[in-house]
This record gives sequence, C-alpha cells and structure tokens, in this order.
Amino acid sequence: MASNNPVLNKIEELKPTFIKRLSDAIAIPAVSGDESLRPKVVEKAHFLAKQLKDLGFHDIQLKDLGVQPPPVSDSNLKLPPVILSRYGNNDSKNKKKTILIYGHYDVQPALKEDGWDTEPFTFYLDEEKQIMRGRGVTDDTGPLLGWLNVVQAYREAGKELPVNLITCFEGMEESGSIGLDKLIIEEADKYFKDVDTVCISDNYWLGTKKPVLTYGLRGCNYYQITIKGPKADLHSGVFGGCVTEPMIDLVHVLQSLVKPNGEIQIAGIKEMVAPVTETENQIYEKIDFSVEELNQAIGSKTSLYDNKRDILMHRWRYPSLSIHGVEGAFYGPGAKTVIPGQVIGKFSIRTVPDIDSKKLDQLVIDHCNKVFAELKSPNTFKTELVHDGNYWITDPFNKSFTAAARATKDIYGVEPDLTREGGSIPITLTFEKALKTNVLLLPMGRGDDAAHSINEKLDVSNYINGMKIMANYLLYYSED
Amino acid sequence: MASNNPVLNKIEELKPTFIKRLSDAIAIPAVSGDESLRPKVVEKAHFLAKQLKDLGFHDIQLKDLGVQPPPVSDSNLKLPPVILSRYGNNDSKNKKKTILIYGHYDVQPALKEDGWDTEPFTFYLDEEKQIMRGRGVTDDTGPLLGWLNVVQAYREAGKELPVNLITCFEGMEESGSIGLDKLIIEEADKYFKDVDTVCISDNYWLGTKKPVLTYGLRGCNYYQITIKGPKADLHSGVFGGCVTEPMIDLVHVLQSLVKPNGEIQIAGIKEMVAPVTETENQIYEKIDFSVEELNQAIGSKTSLYDNKRDILMHRWRYPSLSIHGVEGAFYGPGAKTVIPGQVIGKFSIRTVPDIDSKKLDQLVIDHCNKVFAELKSPNTFKTELVHDGNYWITDPFNKSFTAAARATKDIYGVEPDLTREGGSIPITLTFEKALKTNVLLLPMGRGDDAAHSINEKLDVSNYINGMKIMANYLLYYSED
Repeated sequence: MASNNPVLNKIEELKPTFIKRLSDAIAIPAVSGDESLRPKVVEKAHFLAKQLKDLGFHDIQLKDLGVQPPPVSDSNLKLPPVILSRYGNNDSKNKKKTILIYGHYDVQPALKEDGWDTEPFTFYLDEEKQIMRGRGVTDDTGPLLGWLNVVQAYREAGKELPVNLITCFEGMEESGSIGLDKLIIEEADKYFKDVDTVCISDNYWLGTKKPVLTYGLRGCNYYQITIKGPKADLHSGVFGGCVTEPMIDLVHVLQSLVKPNGEIQIAGIKEMVAPVTETENQIYEKIDFSVEELNQAIGSKTSLYDNKRDILMHRWRYPSLSIHGVEGAFYGPGAKTVIPGQVIGKFSIRTVPDIDSKKLDQLVIDHCNKVFAELKSPNTFKTELVHDGNYWITDPFNKSFTAAARATKDIYGVEPDLTREGGSIPITLTFEKALKTNVLLLPMGRGDDAAHSINEKLDVSNYINGMKIMANYLLYYSED
Repeated sequence: MASNNPVLNKIEELKPTFIKRLSDAIAIPAVSGDESLRPKVVEKAHFLAKQLKDLGFHDIQLKDLGVQPPPVSDSNLKLPPVILSRYGNNDSKNKKKTILIYGHYDVQPALKEDGWDTEPFTFYLDEEKQIMRGRGVTDDTGPLLGWLNVVQAYREAGKELPVNLITCFEGMEESGSIGLDKLIIEEADKYFKDVDTVCISDNYWLGTKKPVLTYGLRGCNYYQITIKGPKADLHSGVFGGCVTEPMIDLVHVLQSLVKPNGEIQIAGIKEMVAPVTETENQIYEKIDFSVEELNQAIGSKTSLYDNKRDILMHRWRYPSLSIHGVEGAFYGPGAKTVIPGQVIGKFSIRTVPDIDSKKLDQLVIDHCNKVFAELKSPNTFKTELVHDGNYWITDPFNKSFTAAARATKDIYGVEPDLTREGGSIPITLTFEKALKTNVLLLPMGRGDDAAHSINEKLDVSNYINGMKIMANYLLYYSED
C-alpha cells in the first residue's frame, strides 16, 4: 500500500489512531432529535473542539444559536453550537486558497431494539470484513473526522497544508439545521470572508463499487390540500349519503395530480424542465448502476423504468410528484365507520432546473382549484405550500470538481461517476448563495451504508481512501 | 295529569321513586370498554338482578358468557353476564302473550374532563328544565329501567300485567355485544321458547319534538383495499419518480368508487335497491324533519340534498358509500416526505333492501380489480370484506307496531313518525332470525340526548311518557 506520497503513507500508518478517534466520537449519543440527549450533543461539540485544538486549529468558536424554537417541550432548550475553526492564516504572506468544510456531528436516533446487531452507540469493528458499525460512522461523524485526520497526516508527515481550512460543523442537521442559515448569512463577510470554495462530505456513492462526485440535488415543494365539511367527524351510519364527504372530494383531487405511471398531470410543469444536453447525456452513459440495484433497494420489482438512464434521469433531473398521506382521516388498523369532518391531503413535487418555484406553486394551486370546482362540492377547499427548497446544480467540470476527480482517480484508478441526488441538502444552496462560491459534494460512504437505518456502517477502506482523496483534493485545488 | 287509567296515574305518582332508581344505577360506572371497570359492570348486573327480584321477576339468571376473547390485556377477563328473568308464567292456565325486552346496562366511557358540566357518574337533575343528566340516562339505563318501573306501576296500581315479560339485558353492547348472538341462538328454544315479539328501547327520536317508532336499519359492509409495493417506506427524494407508488394507485381506485355527489359508481348496486312503494312514500310525507335540522347536526351547510324526502331516503333506504381513511400512509400534522410502501384504503357501503350482501361483495371486488387492472401498476392489489351486517326492515303496520302507535298517540296526542335509521343495531336481526318473531324499536329519548357524547341527558317527560307508552303498549299488544 506504500506510495511515494508521504501524506498518503501517513494516513495508512495512522489508521489505528483514526479508527480510535471515530470510536470515541461514536460513543457519545448526540441525537439532536431527542431533547433529553441534548447535553450529549453539546458534549460531542466539546469533544470535537478539543480535537481541533490538539491538531492545531485556531480561532475555535462554539457559536451559540440561542434557544430552540417551538414545538419543543422545554422552552429554554438551547440549540447545540456550530463549531467554527481555522487551520492556516489568511494574512498577506499566506496566499493559500481557503476551503470551507461543512459537516454535522449530530446523529439520527438509534436503539438496539430497532434491530441493530450491536449497541448503536458502541463502536464495532468487524475485523474480518473491515467494516465499522455504529450510529454516525457514515452520517456524518466519519467523514467529518476525515478532515481532522487529514490535517494530522499532513502534520505528522512534516508537510504544510496546501490550503487554509475553515470548519463549519453543526449539531442540528438531523433536525432541520435550525439556525444554521442565519449563521452562514451573518458570517459570510466575517468568519467566512475568504472562503474560495465549500466542500461537503455528507452524501453517498450511488452504489457500492464506484466512487462518485455529486453536482446536483432536486428541490422540494411540499403542499397540502385542506377540505372542510362537517364541523366534527360524523357516523357514516347516520350521515352517509346525506353529506358531501371531504374525504371523497380529496381522493378526486389527489388522483388528478399524477398518473400511476408517474406522469404529472398539472399543466405547465413539463415545459419548465431544462432539456437534456449532449454533455449530460454522456455522463449518464458511463454511470455504474442497474435496474437490479434499484429493485434491491426498494425490495420489490415495482420500478417505473426498465433501464439505467430512465431511472437515473427520473431520480435526478425530472420532477416527480409523491402523495404522502392524509391527516384527519381514519388511519389505524381495523374498521372505523367515520366520515372525517376535515381532511388534509399531503403531496410534494421534487423540482429540477429550470422550474421556477413560485410559478410552480401557482400552477399547482390553479390546478387543484380547477379540479375541485368541477366537483361542485359545498365543502371549503384550500391548497397551500407548506415549505419549499430550491434545486441545486453546479458545473461538474469546475476547478473544485476537477481537483476532486483527479484525487479520486489517484486512489481508485477510475474516474468517479458524476451523480446528482433526488433528495435535497438545503444548506448547499445557502452556502452557494451567501458565500458566492461553488460547492462540491464529495461523498465518503457507499450507497448501502444504511444512514438513518439500522446497522449503519462505513467500510474501513472507504474511510481511509476517502481521507486520501481529501488529502490530494486539497493539494490539487491549491494548484493554479 | 290524572287520567282514568290507574297504571298511568301510578307512573306519575311514582316519579320520585323512578328518578331515584335511575340515579342509583347511574352511580355505577359500568363502562364495558374499560377493562379496569369490569367489576363495576358486574356490580351493576347484580344491582339490576336485585331490583328484578324485589319487583317479582323470577327465574333470574346471570348468564356467564365466559372469558373475553382477544384483544384484551387480561386474558382471564370475564365477560359481564346477560340478565335473563321472567315476569308471569307460561303455564297452561296463563294464555298471555310473551314479550322479550332487550336492553343493555353497560355504558360508554365518560370523564368530566371530556367537557361534561357535571360528574358523568353522579346523577344530576336540572329541576327547572326537568332534564336528567349522567352517563347512561338515555343510553340505555333509563329505557331499561323503564320496563322495571312499568311493572312496579302495574303492581302498585293493583293491576295484573297483561303480558308475560322476559328480560335479556346485556353488559357488552358498547363493546360489540360479544357473546350475545351465541346466547340468543342457544336460548331460542329454551328460555326464549314462548316469545311472541321482541321490543328494544335503544334508539332515539329523529328530532326533539315528535315521538317515533323505528322499522328499519341499514346494514354495513366494510371493505379494505391493500396495495403493496416497496417492502418498506421510501424517501421521496431518493425514489420519487422511479417507483410506482401504492398511494397514487390507491387514490385512483378510491375515486372510482363514488362521486362527490354521493352517486356510487360500482355497477350493479343500484339495480338491487327495492323501489319506493306508495305506502312508503306516504310515510315520508308526514315525518317531522327539515334540512335545517340536518345542517344543525353536522354544523355546516354541506348537505347533499335540499329537501326532507331526499335526505331521509338517502339516510334510510338508499345505499351510501363512505371513504374512511388510509392505513400505512403519513397521517400526522406537518410535512413528511415519505413514499408509503404499503397502504390500506378503508371504505364501507351502507346496505338496504334488497341488496344481496354476498353479491355486493363480488360487485365491489370486481369493480376494484377492474379499475386497478386499468392502472397497469406492478404493485400487488387486494380488496376484501372486513365485516358485514345485514340491513333490517319490518312491517311498520304489524300488530306490535300498531299497538305501540296507539299507545304513543294516547300519550302525545299524535301518531308517531315511522322512521328508519341509517346505522345498524345487529342484535335486532339476530332476535328476528333466532326467535322467528318480529322486533319493535320503541325509542324513549330524543334526537339531541347526546348518547356517546358529553352531557348525555334524558328529559323527565320522555322518561315518564315513555313508561306510559310502554304500559299501554303491553296492554294493546295483549289484546286480540
């Protein structure tokens, strides 16, 4: 495994140290969604600050974001801090580029009873398979520590870091990143003043074999339809046949939105979608993915498409409409003869370039109003946006991506696949806009790492190779 | 208020005794749905048995129905007894007719915190308005005690009861009448051998002013549609647009069942509905009811019809289809970007003469299968019956109804309205079939008595007049 690069050799050499550091971090159950564990989230912030200090980071600030807004049971509950720190100085003699590293130290909830093979907050290393297990190993404690480890490797190899680093590590990512947008905007011209680019390691390879770089995310506009009739729920024996049922109105409106084959039926959306370019077409050609991988992920053969290109395009670059459920109707097991007095249907549209979010809202509301009017129902009807978040797309051939692709090829011997994701990472867009810079998504883990699920894992090879890519990425990005 | 009928005069005279008896009974919180209160249900059974004994009823049996089947937390929990008793003998010298009186002594749950103005299990008499309040006063302890009071009035007036009575008082009506069907069938040729007719006082006037007799109930066939796709719930960001969503399939099938105007879209049902006869038409003409009463009951102006006849016919004698909800989809407040992996849609059809229940099941299943097939979805699909209960209809001009109508007119000076109900009372059909006799529904309370709700009440006048009707009904039914 020895190379002629002393930093990469040092990463190999320090493997036991890096595994120990991850093991120590995993032991702190920093579940941001569990109020009772908030002290643990804060403890993990202090643990990381200590590590940063020991590794030579400076100007370390644990930024106070104030109390958590409702709904929350303890109205004085403080948000966990955002950890800002620097490595390297931007004084006049230091002409290095500055990279902002984003990561989050909070984790999803986890209990052994959920089905884990080992205690989720006790780090487990499968020596034979060389796989690490524990809540947070891949999402996102492992990748976050990766950057710290890289700095240590540079230091112990006696090499100067080729760039300046700024960290922005938050503790609320799994709970909506409350307060982070505001902080980024506030610090844009202060702490983040000299940032040249942003790198986020918080997503995953598409599959399990080939590394990827990610250059796009879909947005999400979430809507709800509220239909009100009777002032309270009614008994269907007494009132069935006499009243206009909100739930019947609702299924008529919901079915008008989308066909079972996925075709959105709201006029005007298709026309806003950017056409596929030749360059883009070529990207899809090379990607390592198959229908079988999709079927395996969903556990059924209910894919809408039978080929790689259609599946990925509909996941990444075409809009989709999902119906999530109904609030106010009967939802339990068994039989209940209720006529719900008020129902709220929930659906969302994943957005892509060049859908205009505000125009989309209007098209959706107009469509629903039109369909409801045709029902001639006396019930009251309202369609509204619940929340939105724009799509993100960047140039996968810019300086940062080119450096990352080169660094990846060094380690894996192949060009990384250029992927997008169907979901959204809203903070990506905030960094891009507030810091007026571009963002690179550089995933460390594999597609089967089970983030947010049981037995979350990270392959030791992904941890080590991921750090080597990070190390070389810093180097290549620093070159003119 | 004095009449020349000594029994009716005695009822007036005993008013304080009858109110006291109801007050004593209400004090026992016989909630059949609360396992922890099961001893109280049994206590109430013993309370009633004591009353029956003191009033001269004999052959009193507290029939053991065994342990309550699952789901139940205490697997040894015994069902409350059914109280059988007789008044009068059917020996060769006694040629009297025998009437079976059904009632239930258990009640719905109730807590003051639910919004009651007084403690629900402390009897309250509004002296000024002459209204009694407490859980069970109208459903069904008051009407049940009415029969005991009538016997007392006959005895104290020195008059022989013109008929033999058999009581069948159960303690599980509010929890599905578990075990009662079996008991009725078992006792049909034994304890219930000589029964000529059955009278049930366990429903309500249509409105608040005019007494009614009830001659029909709708049945109910409850269905569920299960659609399975992915083996688990999916994230709509990652999979939206790539998989055939069960929830989208479901809203397409559900909307095909019924139009917002209430028209059932399943072929073949309409054709099974019995045509309106001239006699029936005349019944509707006279009934005291208005659209305003419906609007007041539902708290909105979302009635499907603008006239009395259409409203009542669609409540009583036409089928209706209600969509109750969806199991497996998102149902909470807020926004969740889930693609449910499996959804179960619930709906039911209220049945009327002459709908054949089994044929209906087939029509429903065929319809759903056909609509789903047209969707060309790869998901799995199943429609099934969850439970059914047939409609009930009897001749409102038979001997029992004629006697009850005459007795009602004696007291209120008007012919009672002949009503049906949209809901079902399954035990009615069991008595009719097992005992091969007809059943009279003779309600005591008013339409606004708030059975199953807060501040359940019974007007003193309804209690007293109801007993007078019972007393004369026994007399008129005994005549040849």
